[in-house]
Amino acid sequence: MNEIFTARGSVLIAGATIGGSTADIAIDETGAIAAIGKDARKTIDADIVIDGSDRIAVPGLVNTHTHAAMSLLRGYADDMILQDWLSEKIWPLEAHLTGDDVYAGTKLACLEMIKSGTVAFNDMYFFMDRAAAAVDEMGMRATLGYGFIDLGMEEKREAEIKATQSLVSHIKSLDNPRIQAAVGPHSVYTVSPEGLRWCAEYANEQDIGIHVHLSETEKEVTDCVAQFGKRPAALLDECGCLTQRTVAAHCCWLDEAECRLLAERGVTASHNPVSNMKLAVNRAMPYHWLRASGANVALGTDGCSSNNNLDMFEEMKFAALLQKFAWNSPTLLPASEALAMATTAGARALGTGPGTLTVGAPADIVLLDGRAVCNTPLFHADSNAVYSCNGSAAMTVLCQGRILMHEWEVPGEEEIVREAAAAARSLVGRAEDA
Amino acid sequence: MNEIFTARGSVLIAGATIGGSTADIAIDETGAIAAIGKDARKTIDADIVIDGSDRIAVPGLVNTHTHAAMSLLRGYADDMILQDWLSEKIWPLEAHLTGDDVYAGTKLACLEMIKSGTVAFNDMYFFMDRAAAAVDEMGMRATLGYGFIDLGMEEKREAEIKATQSLVSHIKSLDNPRIQAAVGPHSVYTVSPEGLRWCAEYANEQDIGIHVHLSETEKEVTDCVAQFGKRPAALLDECGCLTQRTVAAHCCWLDEAECRLLAERGVTASHNPVSNMKLAVNRAMPYHWLRASGANVALGTDGCSSNNNLDMFEEMKFAALLQKFAWNSPTLLPASEALAMATTAGARALGTGPGTLTVGAPADIVLLDGRAVCNTPLFHADSNAVYSCNGSAAMTVLCQGRILMHEWEVPGEEEIVREAAAAARSLVGRAEDA
Repeated sequence: MNEIFTARGSVLIAGATIGGSTADIAIDETGAIAAIGKDARKTIDADIVIDGSDRIAVPGLVNTHTHAAMSLLRGYADDMILQDWLSEKIWPLEAHLTGDDVYAGTKLACLEMIKSGTVAFNDMYFFMDRAAAAVDEMGMRATLGYGFIDLGMEEKREAEIKATQSLVSHIKSLDNPRIQAAVGPHSVYTVSPEGLRWCAEYANEQDIGIHVHLSETEKEVTDCVAQFGKRPAALLDECGCLTQRTVAAHCCWLDEAECRLLAERGVTASHNPVSNMKLAVNRAMPYHWLRASGANVALGTDGCSSNNNLDMFEEMKFAALLQKFAWNSPTLLPASEALAMATTAGARALGTGPGTLTVGAPADIVLLDGRAVCNTPLFHADSNAVYSCNGSAAMTVLCQGRILMHEWEVPGEEEIVREAAAAARSLVGRAEDA
Repeated sequence: MNEIFTARGSVLIAGATIGGSTADIAIDETGAIAAIGKDARKTIDADIVIDGSDRIAVPGLVNTHTHAAMSLLRGYADDMILQDWLSEKIWPLEAHLTGDDVYAGTKLACLEMIKSGTVAFNDMYFFMDRAAAAVDEMGMRATLGYGFIDLGMEEKREAEIKATQSLVSHIKSLDNPRIQAAVGPHSVYTVSPEGLRWCAEYANEQDIGIHVHLSETEKEVTDCVAQFGKRPAALLDECGCLTQRTVAAHCCWLDEAECRLLAERGVTASHNPVSNMKLAVNRAMPYHWLRASGANVALGTDGCSSNNNLDMFEEMKFAALLQKFAWNSPTLLPASEALAMATTAGARALGTGPGTLTVGAPADIVLLDGRAVCNTPLFHADSNAVYSCNGSAAMTVLCQGRILMHEWEVPGEEEIVREAAAAARSLVGRAEDA
């Protein structure tokens, strides 16, 4: 293993391309950016020096909605009606999922995210204590929530409350500043108002975030109106779930008033264009309304089984293109806004810093290959990042100043891939034998 | 340079994954697949042996609509209204384009296509003799057409006829079986019926293909109906342009009768989903009607300036997802059909063989990295190729049995990138000084 992965101390990225100019980035021992600019190298006697020439520095990307361990289900079943896909394929497999599977799947997901320039993610799934172990080992940031589903049953609700409390205690006990807990009420169609209210109160009491699915399909909205006499965002709001620390995924079927409500409450809308297109939800998130309302709009890949990857570069392109196509405007969601969704808006959503390359910010940095074909020619780095490159342009990735990938090498990659493949095979074997 | 690029003779790909099984591929000295199967290695005393273990073999991809040299304009201007983008940005730059630029840009495009698993493409642009030189050097297949635009003016038409004849003669004189000429009438809104008729007759006389844009925007259809009293496909048909060797790009605004007409004439519809979404053409190609009519539907990236890359893996994913989203059906255009569009349908469109890995077919083969994260786990190779991987999964590429890329190495890559970057800088400098 390259010693750059085990070395600790201050880091200098010498002469990288940042916003069209050449600049140094000096990173102190705590992992914060101490200086940035033409002569930042003079401010530091760095323990580790990374050559930045022909490398374009961008902030590390933030994936605000995923189910990381579902990487084990990649390509298991596709091109199906949502309900058939869930009931015939995904749920039968998930019924056999173990903590070991979640650990192996989350490691595979972390590897994939690091290799495509993502430093932080917002996760909702099961066996999340094992997800935390994977994240800890891989050196990324994550906000981890247990997927709370009570289906309106009191007994199930009590069990979900215990599972949520247990995960939050566990994550707090880790005392890892990169890993935080969230409460994960799945959605208005799988969690009762009582359950939603408990989640909101508990998140407030514990001072942690809320991660919820919102208005992914039209059916969710019409069913909610039929059952509760109000649309999903209003129901979540009534239960206290719309807060400054809430991330609402999908948001496809929001109306204009709901967009304003999300903005007023400070909620982050996580746009998941690939998943929405693959599952044919029939409406793109109304980005123009959310933007006009001043809402924070971030980006997420959703789980691998409905994507089928975790590449935020690809997701930026899908977002910029889907918005243009669906709302019939070639000027909507330009490249720089797509990049901001994946960086500053994501960092704001998860509270991981400004999501920018600025003094004092955590050194969450991606170096893109400036000599890659996708960066040739290099008229506008943002345009190339969003429209031309995919995650393979990321060659070096730092999280809080620690080097997670260097020149496309991530320590332990082969073993992670081998163990995830074995876990997936075993999982399917158990499900098919049952 | 690795000697594998200069060696000539028979080739054995030993023990690759093909359709879920392990098999050898034996390739004879002419570049054709001589044997394929578990023990194909026994049939050949190969001059070159490629280890196929942990590599997934798929047919080389075929890009049926692009303007290759526009790679020089990658990221120069984006997120604009189509007409402003063309008149303020693209046309002023193209006015300064030279043959040397087209050579440098086409080499960059070929490099990008090889690196992302594409072996053949259908090109329409200017200075196409220089494009031919680039294709010849890079070892790919291409069908090259001069973009014929007469704007209804007789004098201009005469010049375009001469330019077309000159290119066709030049390409025939090359006597390179990988490079063929096509006639390239740009569209019904830029070429008069007289021009279209000449193109059709000349293509028939020369026994070559026709490459045309068709129904990209709604305006094209309404203008055509207003001017000629018929829709674009009917006008092309009346002028003789709809043949078995015609590739019609975009096809977004076809009605159901036009889809049947294309199928009856044996025309290939080239779907270009990324470009259509980026330029917000407001309608996806009606794949369901074309498919029901039995039309040959292939895939293309369009030029780099409206994409902004040439990655056919990405294009497959966009195609499969855009069709599902736009026509509200999660089962439409499943992964295996998307892969067939990019391989068999493309090969049929350009007449480059069956586009399959079968005995007798030209050895146009891509080896994908089976140990890549995007192929982990490997439940369904087609699903991973379309939904999970991008072009960076292609590690080895053969065209007519010749190795164009091996383990991600393409000979001359650095020089091609450097020269294309310099050409792009110089082009913009000349345009801005003018």
